[in-house]
Amino acid sequence: MALDPGVATRLKRDPQGLVCAVVQQHDTGQVLMVGWMNDDALEQTLTTGRVVFWSRSRGEIWRKGDTSGNIQRVRSVSIDCDGDAVLVTVDQIGPACHTGKHSCFEEGGDLGALDVVTAAENE
Amino acid sequence: MALDPGVATRLKRDPQGLVCAVVQQHDTGQVLMVGWMNDDALEQTLTTGRVVFWSRSRGEIWRKGDTSGNIQRVRSVSIDCDGDAVLVTVDQIGPACHTGKHSCFEEGGDLGALDVVTAAENE
Repeated sequence: MALDPGVATRLKRDPQGLVCAVVQQHDTGQVLMVGWMNDDALEQTLTTGRVVFWSRSRGEIWRKGDTSGNIQRVRSVSIDCDGDAVLVTVDQIGPACHTGKHSCFEEGGDLGALDVVTAAENE
Repeated sequence: MALDPGVATRLKRDPQGLVCAVVQQHDTGQVLMVGWMNDDALEQTLTTGRVVFWSRSRGEIWRKGDTSGNIQRVRSVSIDCDGDAVLVTVDQIGPACHTGKHSCFEEGGDLGALDVVTAAENE
């Protein structure tokens, strides 16, 4: 199957032909991970109920959970105003991160940004 | 100021020298937009309390809200497991999207993905 032309024409792909895919747990709102999709991965994500990425490191289509069992069931897919990113809400089975952490951002961790709002409240 | 070397060494930049930045409202969990950051933009985001991007279309540093007034106050910045994305939680002043929609994904809209879970519940 080819990606719906009405969707394909809205995509603003990077030089590698990819758009950014933000994956969010549908009920808690937790951002679980960021992946990358080519047209084929987005088409499969839109039509099969499973989240499918393009693996930039392996250079191949990657259906999340086929190896780990930690699949992502699609709830919705939205595109942003300029077409270079999609937001995929999912029901995540098991952890999203390959390290076993629930979110890839829990694994990477906080970078200690200056938080002006909290700093002001504590003055 | 240069980006903290301890952070810089963790980044996995794309061929354009950028990482993906997902911006999320800190209290509601709404994903507002996706932007791009080079080292300088990330350094300013970590140290000034304001979200700063690299504009791929204009090819310049872009401090969100300087023109529109719709600034993003930084609450936290996390990095993901492989260093190619950061999650920035913010307090968004006004709409995040240049079109006036609160989120850029509201502006782009839903792509009508097959939702297997809801379909099964309705059988």
